[in-house]
Amino acid sequence: MRAAPTQEDIRRQNLGALLRRVHVHGPVTRAQLTAGMGLNRSTIGALTADLTEAGLILEEQPRDPAAGRGRPSLVVKVRSQRVYVLAFGVGVDRLVAARVGLGGVILDRREIERPGGQFSIDETVDRLAEFAARLGEAAAPEARCVGAAAAVPAVVARDGGELRYGPNIGWNAEPFGARLSAAAGRHVVIGNDGDLGALGEHTRGAAAGYDDVVYIHGDVGIGGGIIAGGRRLTGADGFAAEIGHMMVNPNGRECPCGSYGCWETEIGERALLRAARRGGPLGRESVHAAVDAAARGDKDAEEGLRTVGDWLGVGVANLVNLLNPRIVVFGGTLRMVYPATAAQVRSRINSTALATHREHLRLRTALLADDAPLHGAAELAFAGLFDNPIETSSA
Amino acid sequence: MRAAPTQEDIRRQNLGALLRRVHVHGPVTRAQLTAGMGLNRSTIGALTADLTEAGLILEEQPRDPAAGRGRPSLVVKVRSQRVYVLAFGVGVDRLVAARVGLGGVILDRREIERPGGQFSIDETVDRLAEFAARLGEAAAPEARCVGAAAAVPAVVARDGGELRYGPNIGWNAEPFGARLSAAAGRHVVIGNDGDLGALGEHTRGAAAGYDDVVYIHGDVGIGGGIIAGGRRLTGADGFAAEIGHMMVNPNGRECPCGSYGCWETEIGERALLRAARRGGPLGRESVHAAVDAAARGDKDAEEGLRTVGDWLGVGVANLVNLLNPRIVVFGGTLRMVYPATAAQVRSRINSTALATHREHLRLRTALLADDAPLHGAAELAFAGLFDNPIETSSA
Repeated sequence: MRAAPTQEDIRRQNLGALLRRVHVHGPVTRAQLTAGMGLNRSTIGALTADLTEAGLILEEQPRDPAAGRGRPSLVVKVRSQRVYVLAFGVGVDRLVAARVGLGGVILDRREIERPGGQFSIDETVDRLAEFAARLGEAAAPEARCVGAAAAVPAVVARDGGELRYGPNIGWNAEPFGARLSAAAGRHVVIGNDGDLGALGEHTRGAAAGYDDVVYIHGDVGIGGGIIAGGRRLTGADGFAAEIGHMMVNPNGRECPCGSYGCWETEIGERALLRAARRGGPLGRESVHAAVDAAARGDKDAEEGLRTVGDWLGVGVANLVNLLNPRIVVFGGTLRMVYPATAAQVRSRINSTALATHREHLRLRTALLADDAPLHGAAELAFAGLFDNPIETSSA
Repeated sequence: MRAAPTQEDIRRQNLGALLRRVHVHGPVTRAQLTAGMGLNRSTIGALTADLTEAGLILEEQPRDPAAGRGRPSLVVKVRSQRVYVLAFGVGVDRLVAARVGLGGVILDRREIERPGGQFSIDETVDRLAEFAARLGEAAAPEARCVGAAAAVPAVVARDGGELRYGPNIGWNAEPFGARLSAAAGRHVVIGNDGDLGALGEHTRGAAAGYDDVVYIHGDVGIGGGIIAGGRRLTGADGFAAEIGHMMVNPNGRECPCGSYGCWETEIGERALLRAARRGGPLGRESVHAAVDAAARGDKDAEEGLRTVGDWLGVGVANLVNLLNPRIVVFGGTLRMVYPATAAQVRSRINSTALATHREHLRLRTALLADDAPLHGAAELAFAGLFDNPIETSSA
């Protein structure tokens, strides 16, 4: 019921929608764009001409045109090197930065791990800014950075600037977005790693094509993201999907959040290594070693994984009853834990989730592996480009 | 990116939007409609003329026109008697049917209670059809029924016809919508009582004006409905918000759903009466008596309410961490239980919900009392009218 959009608004929206479609789905023919976008052929032709001139796409003859069926439809592809974003991933013991090209391809990356350790906020800002500088230097002279975003294991304010609460990294109420932006010399939006993992897997991972998704991210803590009806479930303040702090065990241990019996205290890295009676630092290597030991028949590791798998199933069943997702995706270290505990998880879901809710449910590991939040950060960073492709890429 | 809507489509949408606005918000001036809908004065005038001619609204001079400030803007109101819907509420031990006029006013109602008992599906269909007939007979000859819907304490298929699973009423995989439609002589859509309670409270109750809402409905079982970003959270199959079957107590009792330790087994009517060591049938009267006994200092009842309040708080804290609602509304028998246990609930939320998530959280009892699901059913039944006001009201 608002005032009608201008011709220029409509053109900008159509340019963004077309570019985003090719960015997400890969090469498509003009005929597919015409059918999929509900626009006529001449409009599609005008849009692809504009995007080609801006250097964002290219059009090619199809490799195997159907013989004798008239003029073949041109294939539209992104030019992945022409514009890029910077995506950052902050883990408890791992920092990663990547240059991600149009089409979602990781063109270059830098990372540092410190198993069992942590990074202070000062060090994180410095390292990521240094990575960003190196990634920029390595880009082709004509390549243009059109956005930047960071995934953090913390509650983040809706405006994507303030990190409100991150018990596992020990940062609270930090203007991390502003600090990283200042150090990197360009605006960096921040987002919760679970939310961005969900966005990554929903855009180009295991959850592509599904409208109702729960993504569960395992690190030292347990994060998550929820897609409901095709859209991110944000909650009133942008804080939704703190699934690691769902209480599942009223007799459980204290959680870094101050409560106890949180899901995170039963299925996070600390819980797994404790249940499997294993020493060593926290981190992916230790989780991998525990899963590996169980596979080789180590009784303590087997028993530990059974316990963790049981609690993993309890929490998934709760999320299934509450949210009725079509797919649950396990990311981060849960990519190793879920396959090793699938029997327990399935058994718990069968006993605890309602039959109606589990009938069409799929459980999958993240296709983007540990990079699901990084890919989500890239999508967040690309958003401005799709709002206004020509100006954003030439400004 | 679809083909542009026709003039006729736009007119129909505007008629529906205007009528719905007055239906939900009550009398408004033409000037307020002009500002609120982003349409010009002559368009608003044409729309109100059409709706007036169809008998759906009337326009009046304002009672206290601001003196000397030009021609006063006409006040637009619904004509609540001209069109109505039939709304049905199925509880475990209570059946209700109402004729609800435009504007959401309950014009007439019929109900029957059977404390501690149940209604079979045959009896439910017969009784509600009989109520519907009587409600129709009592309506004015020129009044027109434009829809019908029923709230049921069960998992309902997305198309609003099949009742998939209702452990507390003992019905499973029943074509209840089709049976009630046949008996009532008109199409009746069915919906989950928690979802419809949320819709009722969100439209014209305690949650009006909030975009992120959790509604919790207490009956023998515990139902719920979630509004996220202003829209109902449906899940992949329409089954979302089965909050009563979130496991909160791994050492808890068996639940009618087949699992155990479900929230329902800790805060439902059976749990309350057991914890308060009270006999008597299930039902609102017994809940009221237990709450009343605690208020009068009965130690068993006090202790029982403390226990239930503690579990109520655990579950609410989980929902707050997962969904980040701005408001949680307690309906059904929880309207009595929550005020009697607010100290326990608040204490649990303070210890278990994240500080970021509880900062702006409101907890309220349902304004529509036990009728929240009934009002939600009425809104569901009115939906067709707002899609096409003139034809639906004259067909």
